[in-house]
Amino acid sequence: MLRNLFPILEWFPNYKKTYLIGDISAGITVGIMLVPQGMAYAMIAGLPPVFGLYASLIPQLVYAIMGTSRQLAVGPVAMDSLLVASGLSALSLSGMDEYISMAIFLTLFMGSIQFFLGLLRMGFLVNLLSKPVISGFTSAAAIIIGLSQLKHLLGTSIKMSNQVHILLKNTLNTIEDTNLITLTIGILAMIIMKKIKSVNRKIPGALIVVVLGVFSVYIFDLNEFGVKVIGVVPKGLPGFSLPTIDFSRINELSSIAITLALISFMESISVAKAVEENHTEYEIDSNQELLALGGANIIGAFFQSYPITGGFSRTAVNDQAGAKTGIASIVSAAIVGLTLLFLTPLFYFLPNSVLAAIIMVAVFGLIDVRYPIRLFKNGKDEFLLLVITFVITLIVGLKEGMLLGILLSLLLLVYRSSKPHFAILGRIKETNYFKNIDRFRNDVEISNSILIIRFDAQLYFGNKDYFKNELYKQIRKKEETIKAVILNAEAINYIDSSAIHTLKTIIKDLQGQNIRFLIAGAIGPTRDIMYNSGLVDLMGKSNFFVVTSEAFENLTNKTEKNLLQEKVSLQVKNLM
Amino acid sequence: MLRNLFPILEWFPNYKKTYLIGDISAGITVGIMLVPQGMAYAMIAGLPPVFGLYASLIPQLVYAIMGTSRQLAVGPVAMDSLLVASGLSALSLSGMDEYISMAIFLTLFMGSIQFFLGLLRMGFLVNLLSKPVISGFTSAAAIIIGLSQLKHLLGTSIKMSNQVHILLKNTLNTIEDTNLITLTIGILAMIIMKKIKSVNRKIPGALIVVVLGVFSVYIFDLNEFGVKVIGVVPKGLPGFSLPTIDFSRINELSSIAITLALISFMESISVAKAVEENHTEYEIDSNQELLALGGANIIGAFFQSYPITGGFSRTAVNDQAGAKTGIASIVSAAIVGLTLLFLTPLFYFLPNSVLAAIIMVAVFGLIDVRYPIRLFKNGKDEFLLLVITFVITLIVGLKEGMLLGILLSLLLLVYRSSKPHFAILGRIKETNYFKNIDRFRNDVEISNSILIIRFDAQLYFGNKDYFKNELYKQIRKKEETIKAVILNAEAINYIDSSAIHTLKTIIKDLQGQNIRFLIAGAIGPTRDIMYNSGLVDLMGKSNFFVVTSEAFENLTNKTEKNLLQEKVSLQVKNLM
Repeated sequence: MLRNLFPILEWFPNYKKTYLIGDISAGITVGIMLVPQGMAYAMIAGLPPVFGLYASLIPQLVYAIMGTSRQLAVGPVAMDSLLVASGLSALSLSGMDEYISMAIFLTLFMGSIQFFLGLLRMGFLVNLLSKPVISGFTSAAAIIIGLSQLKHLLGTSIKMSNQVHILLKNTLNTIEDTNLITLTIGILAMIIMKKIKSVNRKIPGALIVVVLGVFSVYIFDLNEFGVKVIGVVPKGLPGFSLPTIDFSRINELSSIAITLALISFMESISVAKAVEENHTEYEIDSNQELLALGGANIIGAFFQSYPITGGFSRTAVNDQAGAKTGIASIVSAAIVGLTLLFLTPLFYFLPNSVLAAIIMVAVFGLIDVRYPIRLFKNGKDEFLLLVITFVITLIVGLKEGMLLGILLSLLLLVYRSSKPHFAILGRIKETNYFKNIDRFRNDVEISNSILIIRFDAQLYFGNKDYFKNELYKQIRKKEETIKAVILNAEAINYIDSSAIHTLKTIIKDLQGQNIRFLIAGAIGPTRDIMYNSGLVDLMGKSNFFVVTSEAFENLTNKTEKNLLQEKVSLQVKNLM
Repeated sequence: MLRNLFPILEWFPNYKKTYLIGDISAGITVGIMLVPQGMAYAMIAGLPPVFGLYASLIPQLVYAIMGTSRQLAVGPVAMDSLLVASGLSALSLSGMDEYISMAIFLTLFMGSIQFFLGLLRMGFLVNLLSKPVISGFTSAAAIIIGLSQLKHLLGTSIKMSNQVHILLKNTLNTIEDTNLITLTIGILAMIIMKKIKSVNRKIPGALIVVVLGVFSVYIFDLNEFGVKVIGVVPKGLPGFSLPTIDFSRINELSSIAITLALISFMESISVAKAVEENHTEYEIDSNQELLALGGANIIGAFFQSYPITGGFSRTAVNDQAGAKTGIASIVSAAIVGLTLLFLTPLFYFLPNSVLAAIIMVAVFGLIDVRYPIRLFKNGKDEFLLLVITFVITLIVGLKEGMLLGILLSLLLLVYRSSKPHFAILGRIKETNYFKNIDRFRNDVEISNSILIIRFDAQLYFGNKDYFKNELYKQIRKKEETIKAVILNAEAINYIDSSAIHTLKTIIKDLQGQNIRFLIAGAIGPTRDIMYNSGLVDLMGKSNFFVVTSEAFENLTNKTEKNLLQEKVSLQVKNLM
């Protein structure tokens, strides 16, 4: 029990010395990435850079204790930072102090939601987010984040917006104010990072451009030429303090807190699962992940953290650099801690445009073009889902895009199951195969007195009428001659109470018309439902068969079921 | 095409004289019911009674032309009236004139939504509303409507609320003001209607209590004793006038308009389908129904109608009284028209408590107790869904209850499909049946080298990880000995792009471990997907079989597929 809640109790006692080198070097690598990234992402969230470092400290330690992934690197990430900015910009706040305290309150709020969902074992909620929705949303968010950094890259003051067309308009309005030195620094930083990445992914490109940036401003006094620098970064670890809980804001913040809780969970679980594939020694438990992320955010909020989650790039680097356990996270938290204690004065001359360059390089990698192209070729409906999510996220808003995406994928699910595949079967000559007569037009024998159908979905409130209509349409076609209907139920994996009611109505009606109704190939759970609902009694046991061919033989040659066939066709688990 | 849009063109040219008696007598019966009901329901909506008559006029004519049901009686109904009241009470309006113009605007708005959904062929949306949600919502709404009439029944002034506990509190606070004569009239009216109904459903009980009510007030001057009467009902037909379109209210009204559009569509289609079962000469088309209801509301709005839909009780009476076509609706509209032209002065002395009694008798019939009990016995999850919808509708609000109900039924759908039934199969001794080893523990042979699984659901983004985890769990159990995996795909009715990706990963991994992967019994649409996505090429054609036993024989006895088996196992429809 305790081991489930704190997976560290599982791996720490079995820690092997051989893990240590991997854990330490991965921890250092990630820590060095984290310092500039954390400061940059805090800038996306509209917070002073030091809060990115605070968010990289305590949550990592909590996750190391509670998380089921041993490589996941948690901390500030770009998309969540954007959500924080978009959520807080909608409130009317008095100034930076209130902005900061609301960001910390939001951390506590979204962490509590995650923790609560974890307690309720709602990890399956991640299934609400289908791949097309995630892809469309991520690409759009990446574009918005990238554009939001243009003001730092150009050195102008552009009014922020989460709607891309307004952001572009605001940018064009101020383009003549561009500071060319700022722009040059930013573009150089991007080029250097790209080059370094193409040579070796493990070299900390972000750190190198930070160092180069600080030096060039310091040496050439570039800040005198209008290059904005981040200025004083407070020294020291974040202290413990109770987050301000502002009950009057709960209503306003609840939708952004829920969005953050779900999206950050989804990001984290998908990267954790991707990395899990390289490892066999542990398994991701999505409910425990909710508890761990929730715990990291809740406890983080007491140490000035803003919302965090597991990040794509740092987790990948952590895994490649050899991390074997949560020790790597503890090491990278230590790097951040040491930076806060001793190195913050060095960042005084760091140009904002270097941080903007770091962000842009990171997020443009999130824009996925190949997947939409593949979808366009294979599944038009899923492609449309992706495009709608992308467009709405881009021009209406993040929450709206995500919500509409989820709703549309649910609708697609309902739609797909509301008109499932309905096949008329015929016996393929000289075999016991019963197959779709449309697909095997030349090979099947069709009987005039026996209608054989297959329904390829669960039978439930959403498709029971469709089933009934299609069935009667077929019966009417053979109106004069029909004597029996065989339902091949192999693909019916569930029947709900509404559908049972419809089935009973149909069967009574057919009995009235002297048409026999037989069911073949029902799977176990369906047999249970048919038994418990009284359907078996209504139809009579002699109308249930293991396979279609036996039902067909029974009708044509009066072949009775043998003892074994009787047993298999009627087996049920829990008689109520 | 024109016939699809105007089904009257289908039935009118083929009209038979024999229909006429049924149509006329049904039309008169429903018209006589409609006059008191319409006035009563307008009262629920917070409108002057005459608007209930306006709403019973033009929309009936439009539906007669455009509707696919030939018995559906459209007009004002209790639940929609309550929704109108709840939606408009949330706005801050200057007085009755603005209230009326907003109600008419709402009619135009919700009608346009229905029409638009019809054009988009979104009739399947009705599937979002499962039976437990409808039942819970209807029962709760019936209770709220009934309680909302207490003020008319008691003759007190109770502050209206859509939350039942507040309504009850408000009622108790004013209970000492009860006018006993008003209460007596109301209770007598209810008793008389109940009695009449138990004798013969076709006798117009509502009309009789209206007549009795008017006479007793008139003769005994009861209005002098504090019995409130409805007063002047304007004479004459509603004129044509453009609805006020208030763009600034669109945002505020949109959620109630969407709720109204969907709920009224759902009410209408469910009663239309229930009546359709008694008739074979026509079929309900849910998309055309959206167009017809939308059209009736839109055109109605130009003639002072408030939101209408197909009602349960009047439709049932219409059908029983022998209505064969839309002529019945035209006749009942004529009755309402004549009433408006000549009879409105007679209603001056009609006591409000008689209308309240009519409403209460109508809505308490909507409270369903037997269905929840049946659900409690059979499906605990659906019972819970019903109870939650009921409670939230009752104590939080109509929109909230409906929305939560829909969301929960979708979640249930996702949840159910995210952990579908996964069975390990074994051959039942001396047969070709491959069945769940848990269910046939004593009858099956289990091979150590061959794992046979069956997955009973579509494979999609929501359950692909579950599939993978369960599969690997089983493979690990036979780690030393396993040589092949057979997937019985009979119950897999769809594979989406995310799941295809997972399947390919699994297959490559198994190929790397020298484990053969075979698929048996894939249905046509699944075969198409497997072909077009390249899965067939990856696995090799020799790994596809028509039935599990052939795959098994191929592994154990090296039996090759014959030509026919080859053809059937690999048949596909559209090679892309």
